[in-house]
Amino acid sequence: MEPKDINAVSVVVKPNDPGANATADELASWLASRGISLAGRIPADAVTTDDEASLLGTADLVVVLGGDGTMIAAARMIGDSTVPVIGVNHGSLGYLTEFRIEELFAALESILAGDYALDERVMLRADLIRRGEKIATGRVLNDVVINKAALARIIEIEVRLDGLFVNQFRADGLITATPTGSTAYNLSAGGPIIYPSMNAIVLTPICPFTLTNRPIVVPDDARIELTLESENEGVVLSLDGQTGYPLRAGDRVEVRKSETPLRLIQPGNRNYFDVLRDKLRWGR
Amino acid sequence: MEPKDINAVSVVVKPNDPGANATADELASWLASRGISLAGRIPADAVTTDDEASLLGTADLVVVLGGDGTMIAAARMIGDSTVPVIGVNHGSLGYLTEFRIEELFAALESILAGDYALDERVMLRADLIRRGEKIATGRVLNDVVINKAALARIIEIEVRLDGLFVNQFRADGLITATPTGSTAYNLSAGGPIIYPSMNAIVLTPICPFTLTNRPIVVPDDARIELTLESENEGVVLSLDGQTGYPLRAGDRVEVRKSETPLRLIQPGNRNYFDVLRDKLRWGR
Amino acid sequence: MEPKDINAVSVVVKPNDPGANATADELASWLASRGISLAGRIPADAVTTDDEASLLGTADLVVVLGGDGTMIAAARMIGDSTVPVIGVNHGSLGYLTEFRIEELFAALESILAGDYALDERVMLRADLIRRGEKIATGRVLNDVVINKAALARIIEIEVRLDGLFVNQFRADGLITATPTGSTAYNLSAGGPIIYPSMNAIVLTPICPFTLTNRPIVVPDDARIELTLESENEGVVLSLDGQTGYPLRAGDRVEVRKSETPLRLIQPGNRNYFDVLRDKLRWGR
Amino acid sequence: MEPKDINAVSVVVKPNDPGANATADELASWLASRGISLAGRIPADAVTTDDEASLLGTADLVVVLGGDGTMIAAARMIGDSTVPVIGVNHGSLGYLTEFRIEELFAALESILAGDYALDERVMLRADLIRRGEKIATGRVLNDVVINKAALARIIEIEVRLDGLFVNQFRADGLITATPTGSTAYNLSAGGPIIYPSMNAIVLTPICPFTLTNRPIVVPDDARIELTLESENEGVVLSLDGQTGYPLRAGDRVEVRKSETPLRLIQPGNRNYFDVLRDKLRWGR
Repeated sequence: MEPKDINAVSVVVKPNDPGANATADELASWLASRGISLAGRIPADAVTTDDEASLLGTADLVVVLGGDGTMIAAARMIGDSTVPVIGVNHGSLGYLTEFRIEELFAALESILAGDYALDERVMLRADLIRRGEKIATGRVLNDVVINKAALARIIEIEVRLDGLFVNQFRADGLITATPTGSTAYNLSAGGPIIYPSMNAIVLTPICPFTLTNRPIVVPDDARIELTLESENEGVVLSLDGQTGYPLRAGDRVEVRKSETPLRLIQPGNRNYFDVLRDKLRWGR
Repeated sequence: MEPKDINAVSVVVKPNDPGANATADELASWLASRGISLAGRIPADAVTTDDEASLLGTADLVVVLGGDGTMIAAARMIGDSTVPVIGVNHGSLGYLTEFRIEELFAALESILAGDYALDERVMLRADLIRRGEKIATGRVLNDVVINKAALARIIEIEVRLDGLFVNQFRADGLITATPTGSTAYNLSAGGPIIYPSMNAIVLTPICPFTLTNRPIVVPDDARIELTLESENEGVVLSLDGQTGYPLRAGDRVEVRKSETPLRLIQPGNRNYFDVLRDKLRWGR
Repeated sequence: MEPKDINAVSVVVKPNDPGANATADELASWLASRGISLAGRIPADAVTTDDEASLLGTADLVVVLGGDGTMIAAARMIGDSTVPVIGVNHGSLGYLTEFRIEELFAALESILAGDYALDERVMLRADLIRRGEKIATGRVLNDVVINKAALARIIEIEVRLDGLFVNQFRADGLITATPTGSTAYNLSAGGPIIYPSMNAIVLTPICPFTLTNRPIVVPDDARIELTLESENEGVVLSLDGQTGYPLRAGDRVEVRKSETPLRLIQPGNRNYFDVLRDKLRWGR
Repeated sequence: MEPKDINAVSVVVKPNDPGANATADELASWLASRGISLAGRIPADAVTTDDEASLLGTADLVVVLGGDGTMIAAARMIGDSTVPVIGVNHGSLGYLTEFRIEELFAALESILAGDYALDERVMLRADLIRRGEKIATGRVLNDVVINKAALARIIEIEVRLDGLFVNQFRADGLITATPTGSTAYNLSAGGPIIYPSMNAIVLTPICPFTLTNRPIVVPDDARIELTLESENEGVVLSLDGQTGYPLRAGDRVEVRKSETPLRLIQPGNRNYFDVLRDKLRWGR
């Protein structure tokens, strides 16, 4: 892609994290010394106002300081903007925050010089439909999850793919994950790892009653419909584990690929499998 | 064991199930015609009063009409009594309600004649301790489960076995199951099948964050302590999936083998593996 | 696609199967009565001569009579031809032989009329490289498997994707499966189901020593290199479980998407998920 | 137990391991300086002669220098003797070789003083029966495994427990593991961890065709019969992965608890769960 001049940078910071905030301060000075404007500095768990979100979408670069949770929140705030995002980890290396703090300023120099690689990560849009009416909508980088309440009995979720009946899952819940989200909750529930550039979505039942109900990988241009068929108290639709909506019997969740992906700046010295081996402790 | 004269029979009936109630009526006539007293007839989901429970404990035989859920409720109501129990299924065959309706009266004839086999099923007692004080207690036939709320993040549960630190599980929850319960929720969460007569308990994490946190089978004479270490909203302790108690950070659940097992009458023509193969569809 | 006149049909028959052979006889008469030539009739486990294989590739339609194993053999024999193939099952319904015998002649009528749906199934090409020289090659519809001998210790396989180091698997073996093959051996080894039209390959370790070595789904346009790193007796490369080559330390297996897919005629009254639910007994 | 005077020590050494051999030399001097006889020094993979094995069985203590494989070989050589065994690891910590080299001599001082803890580990005896005749027998500390050859198709194994039909497994193979062996091959095949003191055996199918064929934990006083029902080339019975016997259709393997367990000296500063957390990397 054509590199673009970086005139304005926005920062998303892990809230109440002294390290992330200290880096944000350093970054502010660094940008000032180069005459680059700091368009916004937003704590990741803030209830993002439209004004704040627009500070992200209109910047030329978004720097995320925190962990994967901070990146997930930033991805949601950014909305349909295609601004490049760089994630800097303030803890152990993340799947999404792949730069170390000490690599940040050298990386920014390269980015200013137009010398960087971008990875496009599919995001999903989920619409919650009740009695034919859309009552909520949201975008996710990792997963759309329907989960039963702690004491509830098994729930029943009908899944359709482009209108075709797939299955009625009887389970604790169902995860609909992007390739990015495949290494998150999906992995704990027994789902596969999916290479991040793939046009794929994985449907993984959580503790299915029928043991042969295994994870299913489907194309990401499909329309996925999840209908809660059972009457249960406390069933919740969660978007990226950060936003929740209570579900009622008959509610339908429609999941489609989002029109714009997240555009994630990649470190030059570390690829996806390097991170995977590190996070899953494969290496010696 | 020494057979005992059957003078009084109590019946536990699946509530609102016309079939189970019809069988209960038939059974009442059958018992009357033989001069056997029908000590009690109790719907399984009733809030059992002490008087009702005593009708079960003091009978010479308890007949359970319903499904496995009905048997689980009956086992809880029976308390520490050692009365033999027979389970008659009103649906598909159950793991615990192994007699078919059409086999009931022939089976009762055999039981009156003292000709029957008993299986002893370990039950567990769970005590909920908050700040050093026992605030709840209960008996289970299947499992003691700690589960997070639908939207909650991962919870942290410290497990100790006879005081030895086993692990701090970071997961959606943790199942502590009897051999009887091994084929219930435990199986959906990836746990093994445990032969019912074994002196074993299985600890199975639900969707563990650390993928190597596998189910652990431990002796049933151990004292198991489960401490909720994380601050989460909506964490619940469930006993046999039927009774729930909200948990707070620092709460400790102590699990031990119950002093008395459930004494379950076995069909002569069907053994544990026959039921297992049927339920899990192993046959060709 | 543009339907093509059906002038010549070849048949692949499950060997030593009286039912499949009887259907082949019936089919021969049926074709004769319509003036369509029976180009060849080939038993599936025959060592296929080039002449026989050419009878398949040059026909306008291939009818496979048998089970999924027969279809796999036929797909291999067909080579790079794009002839449409219809699978008729002589046993329980198959994933690949989706027509019932009693549906065959009605289906053929529709096919002659140009009224049918085709599913394209990715096939893989595997080259075995020893000391820089290609010593064997083959095409698969299901999977390329490297497997240790029965008594051998764990083997070590290095995996690279487009040259990138993925992992060194220490395991009993490694399955590289197509979406079609995802419901075969891959499923038994813990891999996910992959929707058949996807451009995906799944790498699934068999009994990995490192428990976090989970199945990985990768794009099917990648070049996958599998190098046997350990010195073991009896390691074998198997193509679709039907052809085997002994491997030595240092041998490299290169897997890529085959240039032509298998073109499989679909029944009108049954889709992929119908077959899946039936085969995996998801139904109630 | 009553400590016994240590007058003679035998050593089992990992073959061709300079570190293990250096420790053996040091140990020889140490014993000599205390007037304790070095009864034997045996490389673990030697074809053990009866004379050598008797040097192990008649010693008052066996020191194993190597890794878990060395301990497994030692356990087999020791036969029915109840001599205490201490395992010293020459690599990363093992499940069975729990002492570090630098802890060896302090541990020996304690042992000479009678101050040590023993863990009894169940071993299994496997008899291979062909046409009614016992043609081989062996003892295992970890597992009895029936495994197909690399290219072979699925094999069929009928399992009976005390004569009761359990299941006909269609799989790559079947593992029959002790609690000690539960953390070895069994874990890779999806089986549970079993606390080492338990009277349990776990039957774990390897890549079962029927996905609901899950690991089954059974009592260790049961007689387990495994019959190979299918005609396959290259099926092998492996004892602890170290000794192999080719199997033919109809062959029966009978597995029972061995009369004597392995008596393993435990480190005072590290318990089973400490080792488990370390080996499976459960730590934070």
